[in-house]
Amino acid sequence: MTGLERLSLNQATTKLWTLEEAVRGCVEAEIPAIGLWREHLQEAGVERAAGIVRDAGLAVSSLCRGGFFTASAAAGRTRALEDNRRAVEEAAMVGAPVLVLVCGGLPPGSRDLDGARAQVLDSIRELAPYASEHGVRLGIEPLHPMFCADRAVVSTLGQALDLAEQFPEEQVGVVVDTYHVWWDPDVWVQIARAGSRITGFQLADWVLPLPADVLLGRGHVGDGHIDIARFASAVDGAGYGGFVEVEIFNERIWQTAGAETVRTVVERFLAHVGRR
Amino acid sequence: MTGLERLSLNQATTKLWTLEEAVRGCVEAEIPAIGLWREHLQEAGVERAAGIVRDAGLAVSSLCRGGFFTASAAAGRTRALEDNRRAVEEAAMVGAPVLVLVCGGLPPGSRDLDGARAQVLDSIRELAPYASEHGVRLGIEPLHPMFCADRAVVSTLGQALDLAEQFPEEQVGVVVDTYHVWWDPDVWVQIARAGSRITGFQLADWVLPLPADVLLGRGHVGDGHIDIARFASAVDGAGYGGFVEVEIFNERIWQTAGAETVRTVVERFLAHVGRR
Repeated sequence: MTGLERLSLNQATTKLWTLEEAVRGCVEAEIPAIGLWREHLQEAGVERAAGIVRDAGLAVSSLCRGGFFTASAAAGRTRALEDNRRAVEEAAMVGAPVLVLVCGGLPPGSRDLDGARAQVLDSIRELAPYASEHGVRLGIEPLHPMFCADRAVVSTLGQALDLAEQFPEEQVGVVVDTYHVWWDPDVWVQIARAGSRITGFQLADWVLPLPADVLLGRGHVGDGHIDIARFASAVDGAGYGGFVEVEIFNERIWQTAGAETVRTVVERFLAHVGRR
Repeated sequence: MTGLERLSLNQATTKLWTLEEAVRGCVEAEIPAIGLWREHLQEAGVERAAGIVRDAGLAVSSLCRGGFFTASAAAGRTRALEDNRRAVEEAAMVGAPVLVLVCGGLPPGSRDLDGARAQVLDSIRELAPYASEHGVRLGIEPLHPMFCADRAVVSTLGQALDLAEQFPEEQVGVVVDTYHVWWDPDVWVQIARAGSRITGFQLADWVLPLPADVLLGRGHVGDGHIDIARFASAVDGAGYGGFVEVEIFNERIWQTAGAETVRTVVERFLAHVGRR
């Protein structure tokens, strides 16, 4: 027992590594799983990527990402759905059990949040059966409310569950990312409610000050304000037994050598999440 | 009827103006009320400031701000309460019906969000009777979740109401600021629930990109992603009939001549909030 049996390295954490480098980094650090990103699959070629991961004996915890469903015109929504079908196919090819959905913000110039939220529901309604046929579960990820206008009109775990519960459990679940939901006074109740809808669990810490690009402000587990251990217990307590991805977007961390980042990821995982 | 009967200029919008300049600016623009800040009162001297506002015939819509209750040690919490009692006294002196509370973030080094939230409740419990004796209502303002760690552990209108409802309605209400709550899927239900607990209504728009200091990223009404008109209707529909403050923190707007800013505030108010 290394204590790392449930750790997965999300590729975003070592963004500058190629797929091969990330796979090798996981193997060397005894990390048994990887969370893949489509951009890295496309660099490597999807089939080749699938082979590289499989040959290394790594599990795939998720594929990031589908979504961005919202658009001002029907043509844009159709294009988004087509792209999401490709994402589903890629998830199936690489053996990712879940496609993580970042649902999209307000269409350009729109202030119609209800309308955008309705578009998200409609799109998931179209995509879910297709994903199901491919053996891929959709994971709705609520994003921090500071991304509501431009990236995701799904802002809380409760709202993600309201969407997910309109579909069979095996088709649509939710992804809990500590960075996005830690502030929510209702989060513990919603994690318990989520139960077996939880199809992904991602870790990053909230560090201050936020950088100019708030997308890139996440910290290593333990460097910030989030009680990560409490989240790990709550998610397990709700019945989740899957991989725990560490997914950190941070320009400074990206400029650090990948092997050093992985060492920090492992150390912090053992210290804050521990053997579970 | 100018259509401006319910408009109030929050001093934060014209931060570089002295109190005298802001008061003159309101009078010249036929804005009948002003939202005051303690820092400007202290510059002018509180009694003198009260006279300047009164002599100009302006109403005071609120005093910003009390709060910042959270601290790691008892001494810090006691100091915060003392400062809040001074704020209550100043609100009474200038005729502000409400003291706006920005409740405070996590104490340094703490990850105990529940604990910080309990501190906020305890502090309001101590402060509310004192405020009531002075004829000042406390207004709990939920802040955008991106300020949860450093400025306010009260992040949603629902959470603010859960706090406020533990006190008599005339002692503790809530302040609805469009910038902080616009993303919340539950906000319309919570505004209706708030009803006569609404003791302040503030406008600013959500504009992108966020600046390096996310405190200063607010836009003029109409420049961003928020359906301000819908908020104005909802708040009125809940029974609120008080002043509508425009409160914009934005470095670029601060560098604009105050009179020009006030012209924009008036134009946008008429266009998006209108005669009501």
